[in-house]
Amino acid sequence: MLGWDGSAVMPVGGGAARGDQLAVLAVLRHQHLVAPEVEADLAEAEVTDPWSAANLKLMRHAYARARALPEDLVQALAKAGSDCEKVWRIARKDADFRMVQPHLAEVLRLTCETARALSEAVGLSPYDALMDGYQQGIGADDVAPVFAAYESFLSLTLPEVEAHQARQPAPIRPKGPFPIPAQEALCRDLAQRLGLDFDHARLDQSAHPFSGGTPTDVRITTRYVEDDFASAILAVVHETGHALYERGLPEAFARLPVGEAAGMAVHESQSLIVEMQAFRSDAFLGWLGGRLHATFGGDPEPYRLENLGRLWRRVQRSLIRVDADELTYPAHVILRFRLERAMIAGDLAVADLPGAWNDGLQALLGVTPPDDARGCLQDIHWYDGAFGYFPCYTLGAMSAAQLMQAARDVIPDLDNAFARGDLSPLLGWLRTNVHGVGSRLGFNALLQHATGRKLDPVAFQNHLRRRYLPG
Amino acid sequence: MLGWDGSAVMPVGGGAARGDQLAVLAVLRHQHLVAPEVEADLAEAEVTDPWSAANLKLMRHAYARARALPEDLVQALAKAGSDCEKVWRIARKDADFRMVQPHLAEVLRLTCETARALSEAVGLSPYDALMDGYQQGIGADDVAPVFAAYESFLSLTLPEVEAHQARQPAPIRPKGPFPIPAQEALCRDLAQRLGLDFDHARLDQSAHPFSGGTPTDVRITTRYVEDDFASAILAVVHETGHALYERGLPEAFARLPVGEAAGMAVHESQSLIVEMQAFRSDAFLGWLGGRLHATFGGDPEPYRLENLGRLWRRVQRSLIRVDADELTYPAHVILRFRLERAMIAGDLAVADLPGAWNDGLQALLGVTPPDDARGCLQDIHWYDGAFGYFPCYTLGAMSAAQLMQAARDVIPDLDNAFARGDLSPLLGWLRTNVHGVGSRLGFNALLQHATGRKLDPVAFQNHLRRRYLPG
Repeated sequence: MLGWDGSAVMPVGGGAARGDQLAVLAVLRHQHLVAPEVEADLAEAEVTDPWSAANLKLMRHAYARARALPEDLVQALAKAGSDCEKVWRIARKDADFRMVQPHLAEVLRLTCETARALSEAVGLSPYDALMDGYQQGIGADDVAPVFAAYESFLSLTLPEVEAHQARQPAPIRPKGPFPIPAQEALCRDLAQRLGLDFDHARLDQSAHPFSGGTPTDVRITTRYVEDDFASAILAVVHETGHALYERGLPEAFARLPVGEAAGMAVHESQSLIVEMQAFRSDAFLGWLGGRLHATFGGDPEPYRLENLGRLWRRVQRSLIRVDADELTYPAHVILRFRLERAMIAGDLAVADLPGAWNDGLQALLGVTPPDDARGCLQDIHWYDGAFGYFPCYTLGAMSAAQLMQAARDVIPDLDNAFARGDLSPLLGWLRTNVHGVGSRLGFNALLQHATGRKLDPVAFQNHLRRRYLPG
Repeated sequence: MLGWDGSAVMPVGGGAARGDQLAVLAVLRHQHLVAPEVEADLAEAEVTDPWSAANLKLMRHAYARARALPEDLVQALAKAGSDCEKVWRIARKDADFRMVQPHLAEVLRLTCETARALSEAVGLSPYDALMDGYQQGIGADDVAPVFAAYESFLSLTLPEVEAHQARQPAPIRPKGPFPIPAQEALCRDLAQRLGLDFDHARLDQSAHPFSGGTPTDVRITTRYVEDDFASAILAVVHETGHALYERGLPEAFARLPVGEAAGMAVHESQSLIVEMQAFRSDAFLGWLGGRLHATFGGDPEPYRLENLGRLWRRVQRSLIRVDADELTYPAHVILRFRLERAMIAGDLAVADLPGAWNDGLQALLGVTPPDDARGCLQDIHWYDGAFGYFPCYTLGAMSAAQLMQAARDVIPDLDNAFARGDLSPLLGWLRTNVHGVGSRLGFNALLQHATGRKLDPVAFQNHLRRRYLPG
């Protein structure tokens, strides 16, 4: 809640105190996790049913992770991340990597120390021990071949998609301005229509859209610009997917580890199945066009399905991950996965990061950043101490496609519902097969449970071919 | 911050989880205060300068208070208060005291147990030990004679004021509607003009106006009604007084006891010196009338000073404390002080509260509530476990008058500044003489420091005579 507050509503002058408050809470949390009585309680606990067994396993796992880290390391990493992040904001603005380089080196040093300690405690490689903090049940050796296969797929498919796209008419941008109160009302209405209940949710504004809060009080944000409604709407739909997952977690296990979301890759699958799979489908966009025209008026042409598709499903080799389309987005993630894995292994020095970044992006997408602001300085993650997170984005995209395929296999009229602006048949299926499972299953076990097999990246490739290439 | 959030922005469905979160934090806070190492640290600590000495004294005092209370009592009282408050909301709506009576009895029982434990630890009477939790440096034996004198003053002055008022023209209400966005913009502008910096503050809406947050991030609220701007404006001005105090606390002692506000009576003096002493003065209202007419337009008559004075300084014997004028407000507080003191002493049973309330109000103001919703059910305080708080309101009003007199003695052109809508000369004096003192001095010592003498209720009586009786 303090994190949400800091990003959504806090006056700028509250920042210094808030940083201290969050640091104190992080240390208190760690102290409580490793309190002397916890070890004995966990050792003695006995359970019979599968939910309690899964919960106890997660508790023991969380305890082992916390126990492995001395408090001064937790504190030092939190402080180094917070300091580095502050410098990064200036360095990114000034496109000056060298300004932040020593800070990032310190964050990396402490992260490697953390990874080694966690590695011993949980029996995973150091990099996997970091990934495990964001998503249990999958590691780098599972991810690397999936990403390599995607790289091959992309190198073949991207030129094809570009050629096909070049033969289509250019998209027409709707003419604004689009008054922000009207955008806001539409965004609230869309979130509600997708299934979000504002008795248990808020929608606010922030510089970068995110979702936060707790399962009975989810908080999502978006940002509004007057001359384009797309960014606000697409962010709200994406964050609503995250929020619906939190809302659907098993209430009977609220505030227990097993009642929490199954990890950040699963979380991303839930935002992307709503945004990319459902909302950007022909059926949903066809319905949306009418709503948009009714809201904003003017020329109806830009709101026709064909044009909305060309606008909101445009593929483009680009420099910035958060602006990338769903076909090239994984390339940005693959780059970061390889670089961070090398940094944690000690095979890539921080000083060499800008060059490695630029070479890697050139190899993957054939583009090179003109400066580090649009290169290795663009994402907050590493500077804030988050290594091992990036794979979650693409694991989420792939799982979303796989889950959608499984839902389509059992719900025949999904597109009919989408064409009425109705997500509820899909949401019902997700509640049963994903949300209600909580953390009882890890990444691959959850996919197995919901779709009959573990991660199978073919569903994502099929989805992309269907959407971006002629039939 | 979670308290602010719960009252200002939380969706209703977040209430249950929030209650649990706050209860957990209260227990954690208590556990940290009484941690084994604290006692030894406090015993060994040595200080030389007066600020550190005051700080250590406050720490030892806070420790003694916390140490006196077993954790299960803290938890039981928090839970009883939270349960009782929920029932009270329904009981007040239904004007049904008997519904909440057993809950209040349980809160009182636990409060008496708490008061006895605190009494032994800090060497004050049980009631004073409760008062001490809200305002240090003054007790019931100081308050009782001051309140008795006010009762006499009121019994003479109120009829005189009523007779004088009856000879004046009736006030004219400005005709609405007053669009809420315009009210909100005006409120923000007023708060800024009074000295609040929105880089360190927020203004939001809530059912009951309040101020919260931290010194670098103060949060105030108000409520808006379309057909009357008075309630929104007066609440914002009042809460701005509280917020300016927090903003002016000594930064060098931030997050130490000595750097906190000096108590709730002092806090109330700071809201009331801004609202009642400065803002409702002839000089300030004269300036405000022009701003109001420029904002809302229409007939200029209601915005003339004489009329604003008649509207916003109207004296009326009434049933509801929060709606009372400044002359009769202390009667409501005197009633509650006497009743709660008797309850803590065991001289008044909860079952007899409604009758004692009605008799007491009749004796003080000559009016009797037609039901308990407008009687002993109107305030949240007791039902939520707050006994010993009520005197702070009137101690604050009296101190505000005394501080204002002292400020006028050294700043000759205060009214000239008010007539330009300028609070800054008064604010500068308050920053030096009150805000910047933090908690280094208790109630009477602070008044002595700022005005040259301890609480002297004559200043308040003089203020009331000047304002409400012909010259």
